[in-house]
This record gives sequence, structure tokens and C-alpha cells, in this order.
Amino acid sequence: MALKSWLPIPDDHEFSIENLPFGIFSTRLNPMPRPGIALGDYIVDLSALASNAVFQSLCPAQFPFSTLQQSTMNDFAALGRKTVNAIRLLVKDLFLETTSMLRDDQKLRAAVVVNTREEGVEAQMHLPFDTRDFTDFLNSRVHAKNTHSTSTTPININLRRIRFNPPRAFCGRVSSLIVSGTPIVRPMGHLVKNNGEAYAAASQEMDVEIEFGFFIGVGSQRFERISIQDAEEHIFGVVMLNDWSTRDIQKFEDHPFAAFNAKSFATTISPWVVTLDALAPFKIKPQAQDPLDIPPYLTDTEPNGTYDISINMSWTLDKEKETFNASTSNLQNAYWSFKQMLTHHAFGGCQMRTGDLIGTGTITGEEEDSICSLVEKTRDGKMAVETPAGNRRTYVADGDEVVFTAWGGNQGPEMAGKRVGFGQCSAVILPATPL
Amino acid sequence: MALKSWLPIPDDHEFSIENLPFGIFSTRLNPMPRPGIALGDYIVDLSALASNAVFQSLCPAQFPFSTLQQSTMNDFAALGRKTVNAIRLLVKDLFLETTSMLRDDQKLRAAVVVNTREEGVEAQMHLPFDTRDFTDFLNSRVHAKNTHSTSTTPININLRRIRFNPPRAFCGRVSSLIVSGTPIVRPMGHLVKNNGEAYAAASQEMDVEIEFGFFIGVGSQRFERISIQDAEEHIFGVVMLNDWSTRDIQKFEDHPFAAFNAKSFATTISPWVVTLDALAPFKIKPQAQDPLDIPPYLTDTEPNGTYDISINMSWTLDKEKETFNASTSNLQNAYWSFKQMLTHHAFGGCQMRTGDLIGTGTITGEEEDSICSLVEKTRDGKMAVETPAGNRRTYVADGDEVVFTAWGGNQGPEMAGKRVGFGQCSAVILPATPL
Repeated sequence: MALKSWLPIPDDHEFSIENLPFGIFSTRLNPMPRPGIALGDYIVDLSALASNAVFQSLCPAQFPFSTLQQSTMNDFAALGRKTVNAIRLLVKDLFLETTSMLRDDQKLRAAVVVNTREEGVEAQMHLPFDTRDFTDFLNSRVHAKNTHSTSTTPININLRRIRFNPPRAFCGRVSSLIVSGTPIVRPMGHLVKNNGEAYAAASQEMDVEIEFGFFIGVGSQRFERISIQDAEEHIFGVVMLNDWSTRDIQKFEDHPFAAFNAKSFATTISPWVVTLDALAPFKIKPQAQDPLDIPPYLTDTEPNGTYDISINMSWTLDKEKETFNASTSNLQNAYWSFKQMLTHHAFGGCQMRTGDLIGTGTITGEEEDSICSLVEKTRDGKMAVETPAGNRRTYVADGDEVVFTAWGGNQGPEMAGKRVGFGQCSAVILPATPL
Repeated sequence: MALKSWLPIPDDHEFSIENLPFGIFSTRLNPMPRPGIALGDYIVDLSALASNAVFQSLCPAQFPFSTLQQSTMNDFAALGRKTVNAIRLLVKDLFLETTSMLRDDQKLRAAVVVNTREEGVEAQMHLPFDTRDFTDFLNSRVHAKNTHSTSTTPININLRRIRFNPPRAFCGRVSSLIVSGTPIVRPMGHLVKNNGEAYAAASQEMDVEIEFGFFIGVGSQRFERISIQDAEEHIFGVVMLNDWSTRDIQKFEDHPFAAFNAKSFATTISPWVVTLDALAPFKIKPQAQDPLDIPPYLTDTEPNGTYDISINMSWTLDKEKETFNASTSNLQNAYWSFKQMLTHHAFGGCQMRTGDLIGTGTITGEEEDSICSLVEKTRDGKMAVETPAGNRRTYVADGDEVVFTAWGGNQGPEMAGKRVGFGQCSAVILPATPL
């Protein structure tokens, strides 16, 4: 039986009372970005709650309310997973149909509850954290095999039998992080003619990479490690992440380094951060790992060390006015769990800081419809995607929109009133700025 | 003829009155980190100067003095190169032997001039900027050839004829940035046995990479480009950079990505940022570039587009108590100029922000003694370095200290009183923390 709120939340809403993700929002009347919790089509204004005496009396002793009155969630997240979840559960309780404090106080309700569907409210989402470092892992064997066997240079043929030993990752560009809904200007790139001559042109191969990302709550000291047992205590929560990649630019950059300008222009994330506590019901056994790959420090004794979270990509072709589902995958297609990624990251003494973002990498699965990038789907651009309406595309065209959605577990009737979803991770592509 | 200061500055001091680099320092009596300028063995306390009415009257109209009263130089640098240099030239004038304002005001002198050699002062340097993104380029053909031809995996043999087309770079870990003098704990790594089994052990191949880095002053907007003509207006100044790299960890990470945990534990920079205006006398023709590599957006019409700056590595063997010069190179061994690196970086629309750091990459030259990393010097660890005293080392041992120094132009008598040096970029290696 699902718990009921006194707010009208449809049973199939992804922001059910069991979810309560955190984000940074602003409104037309109060343009100051501030922390909120999503509940149905409402946002609970945590900064407004924080200044209320009754709410204060419910909070843990010495709770620093100023952490809820800032334009990022860094100071709040740094309080630790237990404190964050205590606040989340307090909010949950406030909105249960049996709890009167807010329900019966029209004035307080008006100050705290923002109805995003009300005309003139104009709720806007912002980046949830002041992120200091962004790392992206390589996490799908299938993706690694697909992308490296389609490479035009011969040096990667040996990588068909790629191993994840050690785990692979690269540092991404923090300034590339943008919140869902921000349009993206198609980048110019340094390309190379057959005679070796460099020339500049707009990328013709704008691709997506379907990923999740997780934010660090409590960081670590430099030269300290994080044990796999403690790792989830350092994780605030999870978002969707689109690691936009221009494949033509990338092709020339890829060797001997990873992509650089091919990825540095934009990385879209969804604004609502779903906590690990909200995702706990979806804990699941990870995919089989080769014991040879797992030294003791990466050995997880928890049987259900990862999460059953699905992610879907919807693609709108602007010129053809068609919207269709391009892909559906699941976090289980990631070889390494969140815990393993974080523990490995800090293993050499790398300092992790509150708000750091770690991407899972593209999570392509074995099935054709779980392919999570177009370079894979189109076999390096050689085979156009044919849409349900018979349109064809290899890469994302100007005006096209890509929207990711994601959800824990399934969307069946047993999840009515209990759905845990991630909102949207979307962007429209704008034409390149001419030279 | 060199200009003279009323402060006693030895003629051979690298912080001459023509240099005046900026940094963030604190002292025992005033532990608040704040901006200063180095002049000989003195530090000019810019925050103390900023609150002085006479100094204020000399400054550009509407100059925001609060930018000099912060714990990083971000807000000051964001004022732009012209304003930064105007302040630098004001300070230069204040310390000329003919200028009386500070010279004859004992009380003001005591507040503004910190003698770092005075007992009890305990001046300490901090990171100069709150850096949001750190990028490192691949910039020496010789280094690229050396490192990729010594690789143990066969896939890099084709890279012997490496081209820099497009320029190669990777994002580094901002949390790895530490200021000169901070000891470094040897990292643990994920290594792999011959049978493919992963195991964890302390790195045995701790290496240096001799580089310069430059800080962004005025940033750029997302999806904007920076023209090569404007690029130097966006650059605040230059530091030395040691991109510590553990080669045994790197060897397993390198393909298909770049180094990750092999570099994420520590990157040492020198604390004093030498401005491009101080380096202007050392402008020089860059090394020849293949015209095929240079599309119009990277074409620099300034004949002297780079700088003649030398850099030296001194290595102290702790056990053997020997100190010797291990390498001397020059910025001219970088294929791309600062301008070209920055213009390329922003070309796809990547946003650059004040305080961003761009490393030149290892600047190994053609000569044996200009090799800028030990993996190259020792031919991948196969050939120990033999020291002047007959000691042998392949990589940096626990207790060893590595010190970089650097200088513009030469150190001959014609530079007496006019030397422009960079201070020190140093670190001692501490033993790994056992598992």
C-alpha cells in the first residue's frame, strides 16, 4: 500500500512521496536559487522551511539551517548521508495525509509549497552543486568494443578484447556541465583532410552518450582512501547525464589521448538528484565480474551492490516533426558499481570533494535497443537509424531535441504511488556560430 | 641600466623589480591568505596596500580594492590584464629608490613589506587561484615519441610518427593541484599480474613531468571562441608545474584512455605567478610548425609568439645525500604557444573561467639533458640515471626531493638587477600508506 500525501500527487508520478529528490530552483517571484525537494508537480522550498520555527524544532540538534539557504547544495550535502536523509524523511512526514503542520496552515503552505504548474510561477532549475571535479568512467564492455572496433585508425583493433583491469576513467571538463533544458550550440572543430592538412568546420557528427552520474556528499582528504564498505556514505545521489560527443572531432583527437574538444563544449545533467536512500528499494545483484579484475580493495561483500535503474532516450527530429524512443538501457549494464568507481578513484590518494560528479560512462547493453550512443547504433555513421515513421538520421541535427528519462525498478501497477523517477535530461541543438 | 629599489635586492635575485609576480601568502601574525607581490626576499602585502588611502589615490578610477583582500586572486585577475598590470606598475613605482611614499613611512612599510627572512615571520604560500578546471597539453614531439615508443603495449608503435594535428590535451584533476613544498604520499595502484590478475601495491615508478602552466585571467562565455589575437589578454601569468606520474599504474590505464589514477594524486605548482607583462622581454620566435597543422584560427601573425623561458630540475637523493641537476629545458620545446593552446581549447565553445590552469605538457627537447621525465631518461626504467657522484636511480625514491627552478632569457651579467625567475616548484616523496 502506497503512502498518501495531502497534496494531490498522481499515482503514476515519478516524484512520489517515496522519492523526494533534491535540487536547486528559483522562481519568478524569488529569483534566488535555493534548495528544494520535488514532490509531484510541486517543489518544497527548503530555504522557506528552514526559517520556520516548527520545522526547526523537528530537526536534528545543532542542524545548520543556513546550509538550506544557499544557491548550491554543497554545504548541505557535506553534512553527510544520514543527516541529509533525516531532513528528507522529515519532509516526507510533513506531507503525509495524516500530518497537519503544513496541511492546515495555509500561510506556511503558500510560503513553502511551489506549484510548478501554476501560471506565473516560472520555476527554473539550476545546477545542483558547485562541482569542482568531474570524472567519467568507461563501464560497458559492449560500448568499448563497439567504439574501438569502429575506429578509423588501426591501433585499436587489439582492443576488441578489452578488459576493465584496471577500471578506466578520464577527467571531464567541469565548465561543460549544464542543466537540462539548456540549448547547445553545435561546436566547431579542428579536422584533418586526407593530405594531412588541418581545417576548421562545424561538427557533422553530434552524438549522445546515455549515462548516469553520482554526486559526492562527504569528500575525502588528499592521500586518504575510501573503503568499499564506506563508499555509499560518501554519495549524495544520482542524476542522468548526457556526455555529448562530436565523433568527427573525436576521431582525430582520440590517439594517444582521450576526447578533448569533442566533449568539452557541453555535458547535460538532470537537475533533481535522487538519493541512494530513495533508490535503496531497487538494489540488485551487479552483472558478473571476472574475479581476476577485482583486487581485495574493490571486493564488495554486499550481494546487491548496484541498482536496477532504467534510462530511456527520446529523440525529436525537428525538421520531420517526429518523436520516437531511440534507446532504453539500465545501470546494470555498467561493469563497475558506484561503490567500486568511487573506491577506485580515491585509491591512489586522489582527493574527492563535496559536489564532485562521477559519470558511469555510456551504459550500452548487449541488445540492439540498449545501445547508448549513435556512433554505435549507426556503426560509425555507416548505417542510418531508421525511425518508426521511416525517417533516417545518423547523428543529431540542428533543431533536434534529445530527452532522457529514468526510473527505479519498473513502472508496473505495483509501483503506483511509489515511483522513483529522475525527471528529464534534455537539450536542443542549435546551429554552429559561423567563423 | 637596471632600476634600483630602496629595498636591498641582490642583483642576481630572480624576483627583481622588473618581475613582481603575484601570489597568495599568509604569515604567522596574519594567517589569513592574501595577495602579495614578491620583490627579492620580501613580499609586498597587497591587501595592506589596498587599505591605504595614498595607494588608493594612485589606482585606476573605480578600482575595486576588495579584490586584493581575498584568499585567492580570482576576482583580481578577472579585472583583466591591463588593470592587473597597472597595479603591478604602481607597486614597481612605489619601490623605486626615488619614490618616497613607502620608503619614508616606517609605519606603512611595517604594515606592507614582509621580510620573509626575518625570524618569526613564517611566510607561507598557498594556491594562487581557486581553479575550476585544469587541462594539460601534449606538446613535445620528442616526449610523445619517447613515451609511446617505450610503451609495453604494441598498439602505440604507429605513433612514432606522431603529428600534433589537432593539438592534443586532456583534462586533469583539479583536486590534485598542490602548492610547492607540500609533501606527496606515494600512491597505491591497481596493477595487473602476467596472468591478468589484478593486485594492489604501492607504485614503484614515481616520475616527474617538467612543465609550465598558465592561469586564465578573464574567462570566456560558453559557446564563445577566443581569437588568437585576443588570447594573451585572457592570460594572467605563468607558473612551473610538475605533473607527477606513476608509470607502472599508468601503463595499465593508458589504453584506450589517458592516465587517470597515475596522475590524479598530486600536481605541484610554483606559488608565484609571473605575468605575461614581466615575460614580455623574453618573447621569441616559436619552433617551426608544419603549415599543414595550422588552420587559420591557429595562425599567429606575431613573429615572436612564444617565450624564452628555461626550466631546471634539481634532484636530491635522500639516502645518498646527493643533489644534482637532472634536466634543463626551455618553453621553446613546446610545439604550441600559450595563445594557440588557449585558442584551440575554446574553439569548440568550451567555457574558460578565471583561475583555470592550462599545462604545457612535458617539454622534452632534442638533447639528452633536456629530457623532462624519467620514463624517457631511463628508457622506460631500463637504464638507470647515473648521477655525478656515481649513484643510480630509475625513479624517485621515498625521501627524495625534486626542485624545479625557471628563468626568462639568460642569467648572464646583462640581466643583473633585471632577472625574472619563478621561485621553486618542489616536493618530497613520502612512503605509501600501507593497505
